[in-house]
Amino acid sequence: MSSRSAPPEALLEAAAGGDRVALARLLSIVERGGKEAGDVARLAYATPPPYTVGITGAPGSGKSTLTNQLVRVARGGWPRSTPADPGTADPVTADPVDQVAVLAVDPSSPFSGGAILGDRIRMQEHATDPSIFIRSMATRGHLGGLALAVPEAVRVLGAAGVPLVVVETVGVGQMEVEVASAADTTLVVVTPGWGDSMQASKAGLLEIADLFVVNKADRPGLHDARRDLEQMLDLSAPADWRPPVLATTASSGEGVDELWAAIARHRSHLEESGTLGVRRKARLAQELRRVLTARVLEEVRALSVAGRFDDAVRSIADGTLDPYRAAEELLPPVATRSDPLT
Amino acid sequence: MSSRSAPPEALLEAAAGGDRVALARLLSIVERGGKEAGDVARLAYATPPPYTVGITGAPGSGKSTLTNQLVRVARGGWPRSTPADPGTADPVTADPVDQVAVLAVDPSSPFSGGAILGDRIRMQEHATDPSIFIRSMATRGHLGGLALAVPEAVRVLGAAGVPLVVVETVGVGQMEVEVASAADTTLVVVTPGWGDSMQASKAGLLEIADLFVVNKADRPGLHDARRDLEQMLDLSAPADWRPPVLATTASSGEGVDELWAAIARHRSHLEESGTLGVRRKARLAQELRRVLTARVLEEVRALSVAGRFDDAVRSIADGTLDPYRAAEELLPPVATRSDPLT
Repeated sequence: MSSRSAPPEALLEAAAGGDRVALARLLSIVERGGKEAGDVARLAYATPPPYTVGITGAPGSGKSTLTNQLVRVARGGWPRSTPADPGTADPVTADPVDQVAVLAVDPSSPFSGGAILGDRIRMQEHATDPSIFIRSMATRGHLGGLALAVPEAVRVLGAAGVPLVVVETVGVGQMEVEVASAADTTLVVVTPGWGDSMQASKAGLLEIADLFVVNKADRPGLHDARRDLEQMLDLSAPADWRPPVLATTASSGEGVDELWAAIARHRSHLEESGTLGVRRKARLAQELRRVLTARVLEEVRALSVAGRFDDAVRSIADGTLDPYRAAEELLPPVATRSDPLT
Repeated sequence: MSSRSAPPEALLEAAAGGDRVALARLLSIVERGGKEAGDVARLAYATPPPYTVGITGAPGSGKSTLTNQLVRVARGGWPRSTPADPGTADPVTADPVDQVAVLAVDPSSPFSGGAILGDRIRMQEHATDPSIFIRSMATRGHLGGLALAVPEAVRVLGAAGVPLVVVETVGVGQMEVEVASAADTTLVVVTPGWGDSMQASKAGLLEIADLFVVNKADRPGLHDARRDLEQMLDLSAPADWRPPVLATTASSGEGVDELWAAIARHRSHLEESGTLGVRRKARLAQELRRVLTARVLEEVRALSVAGRFDDAVRSIADGTLDPYRAAEELLPPVATRSDPLT
C-alpha cells in the first residue's frame, strides 16, 4: 500500500495503519514541498494537531540524550494528576501515549530523511520499538525551508495517529529557535556554566521558553545556573505562567520523570487557560504567512529563470529603471485590487 | 523651494543646490516608504551611485569616533597615488571630495531623522560644516525596513550630488551587518581583546570585511588582535583581495590617514578588476528582491486588514482549509501564468 505512485490518501491510510514506509514517504513529500506537498497538507490539516514539545539549546547540552529519555518516560502516558477542564476545546482525553514521533531538525546537515528507524546511534534504544518513530529533517528542496516543512510534518504525523511529537533542534540558531518555539510546550536546555557561552541568546531564549532544563546537573555549577535563570525570570514581565527551572542528568535519566510531569502541568495550564487554542491559531497564521511568502519568492525565482528579473536589474544598473517601478512591472498587485476568491 | 508640498523633482533640485531641509525631507520620504518613496526612487536611481563605505563592529569599538575622524580626512580628497584604470566603467574621476554624508543606522532606536545637523554630540565637530551631512536612520514605517531604506537613502544622497557616503551601524546584528556590507568598501572595526566577545560573529564578519580596523590600538592586546585576524585570513579561501588589518586610535586620530589610503587602494582594486560593477549589480538585484518581497508582504497585510487573512486562519484552525489552498485563494499566482509587462 506504500508503492511509489500511491496517492496521498492511500499513503495516509496506510501510515495510520502502522505502515512506516508510507509515513516516511509522506514526510519526504512534505520536505520536498511543491504541489504534491499541498495535496498532503490538504489531508493533514483536516485532523487536529498532535501535542508538540519543542526542545532547543546549545550544541553539547545533551538534548538528544534528553529527548531519548523523555520519549521513554512519555510512553508511560500523561500523568493523571492534572485533569483538564472538560470545557476546553482540546482536553487531555488520552492519558496513554501509544506512539511518539521525534523530528530531529538539523538545518546544517546535507542529509535528511535517512535517519528513519535509527541510524542515529543515540536513538538506537528505540530503533526497534514500533511505538516510536524517529526522523531527521534537514534541507528542503524548495523555498520556505524547514520553518515551513516542520509544522507540516507535525500535522502529517498527527493525521497518521501519532498523539505526541517531539521536535528537537541541533542548536540555537535563529531558524532553530523559530522551529522549536512553534510547539505547544517549548523546552530550553542549558548546562551548568551556560551563562558565558550563551550570553547573547539569553533574551531570545527567555522569550520562547515554557520550561528551562539544566541538563548535566551532576556537573559543578548547577546552583549558579539555576540562580542565573531564576534571576532572569524575576526580571522579565510577569505572565500567567512562570517557566519552571528543572534539573536533569539525561545520561542517567535522573529528573526526567519530573520533567515530563512539568510538561504535563504546562499542557494543563494551556488547556485550562484557553491559551492552547490561541497559541495554535497564532502559529497557523505564521504558517500561512510563510506559505504566502514562499509562493511569492517562487514567483520571483520563476521571473529570474525567465530572464526578466536579470533584465530589470540591468535596467536599474543603467539608470533607466528603479526597483519600485521594476517591482510594479514584474509583480503587479493582485490581492489588493481585486477579489480573487471565487 | 523645500515647502512641504513640493514635488520630489523640486526637492531634489533644491537638495542638489545645497538645501539641507529639502535633502532631509527626501530622506524622510524614503524612510517612510510607500508610493511617494517610489517617486523619489525613480529620480534617485537615474544618477549613478555615490561611493559608499560601510562601517560595522561591536558596540563600544569606537565606530562613531572613527567615522568622525574618517570624514575629516576624507574631505581632503582621494589620494592620487592610485589612479584608476581609465578603461573601467566608473573611474576615480573626482579626486576632491567636496561633500560627505554619514548615515548612522540604529535599528533599535525609536528615533530617526532627528540627528540632522548634529544632535549627536560626538559629531558636533562637523555640525556647522556645510560639506558634511549627518543623518540618523532607525525604524521605518513600512515593511522592508532599514535594509530597503538605507540603499535608497544612499541613492538620494548621490542624486543630490554627494560623492561619498559613510554608512555606520551601531552593532553587529544580522540586519546591521547586512546594511553595512551593502557598501563598496566595508570596514569591520574591532578592538584589542575583541576575540572573546565576538567569537560567534567571526565567520560572518570575515565574509563581509574588505578592511579590518583594530581601533583603540593604544590599549593592550593590539598584537594579539592583529595576529588573530591575520590567522583567520590565512585560513579563509584565497581571493584577489586580502583584507588588510589596520590599527587606529580614533580618539587621537592616529592611523586614520593610513585607513583612508587603504580605502582608496580598495576602491582602485575594485575599479581596476571590474569588481565594482559586478558588486553593485549584485546589490541592485538584492534591492529588487527586497522590494518585491516587501510588496507581497504589504499585500498580505492588506488581506489581513480586509479580514480575509483571519478568515483563512480560522478555516485552517477548523480543519476545513490548509495553508496551501489558503495561499492559493488569497494570492493567486500572477507572474508565472501571464506576462504582466505591457
